[in-house]
Amino acid sequence: MQFELAHAIEILRRTPDTLNSLLRDLPEPWLVRNEGPETWSPYDVIGHLIHGEKTDWIPRAKVILDHSETRAFEPFDRVAMFEESKRKSIVELLDTFTELRAKNLHELQSMNLTSDLLDQRGRHPELGVVTLKQLLATWVVHDLGHIRQVVRVMSKQYGVAVGPWKAYLSILGE
Amino acid sequence: MQFELAHAIEILRRTPDTLNSLLRDLPEPWLVRNEGPETWSPYDVIGHLIHGEKTDWIPRAKVILDHSETRAFEPFDRVAMFEESKRKSIVELLDTFTELRAKNLHELQSMNLTSDLLDQRGRHPELGVVTLKQLLATWVVHDLGHIRQVVRVMSKQYGVAVGPWKAYLSILGE
Repeated sequence: MQFELAHAIEILRRTPDTLNSLLRDLPEPWLVRNEGPETWSPYDVIGHLIHGEKTDWIPRAKVILDHSETRAFEPFDRVAMFEESKRKSIVELLDTFTELRAKNLHELQSMNLTSDLLDQRGRHPELGVVTLKQLLATWVVHDLGHIRQVVRVMSKQYGVAVGPWKAYLSILGE
Repeated sequence: MQFELAHAIEILRRTPDTLNSLLRDLPEPWLVRNEGPETWSPYDVIGHLIHGEKTDWIPRAKVILDHSETRAFEPFDRVAMFEESKRKSIVELLDTFTELRAKNLHELQSMNLTSDLLDQRGRHPELGVVTLKQLLATWVVHDLGHIRQVVRVMSKQYGVAVGPWKAYLSILGE
């Protein structure tokens, strides 16, 4: 499928509602269990998404628009949330994510991105040359990937409880 | 995690909202594309979930409560939706799923399942002896597995659009 800005925004604007629907006011065990050492709980994922809203997507879009390939993006800290989320409730994190996403989509729309601007090139510190369009498509897929992570982590908490049905539930083997 | 009926219901009651948030009024390409031959689109998944509400979870729970191991469940038709969903809009399917899920959860709660009843045994046509508790845990994991399928299918539509970022997005390789 070709990237279309309006189609991408349709997904990006839905993610806060989807995560609220999945997680808000859920009993704690569903929120804090993970897949084992060095893996993330649904709670951790929301903190990671918040950090992305603050330091990744829109800030990188601005670097592309302002500096093109001449300035590489700041590296993204994938685990900053372990410090930043401390002592915050899941409701607080979901509300923060919802606010930041709304603000960032407003900013994205105010950029009035033309087809030429979407093709503008930037420089990723590891991946090299990328385009603004690729950054925005990645934002979409990153959202979807973390929704899938949240439901996978939750499903595994019932990996034993399903008994013999485990054989039919491919999500438990991922 | 041990199975707890109240915790399971917390997930089951959220699935219609989650799928509405992900899919309702989404531009058609996101809804009807799949992962290739013999795979399902998000549209197909909702039809499959509807068929489960009609013929799988609560009907099987009743077979367990009424007949224990003496009667095997009817086999479940995993692809019935290709016929049943024909000419229905995604909004129609989402509304049907929402109604059926609410009705089924009402019925589940009216069964007043005690710990003894949850341990009651039934017979799966292929897997052999299972318990009511395992059936209900499977219902939960089945929901989560199909949410993960929906977002995975959607993410793959941008598998090319993300460019070099593909290397970092594990959902695209699943």
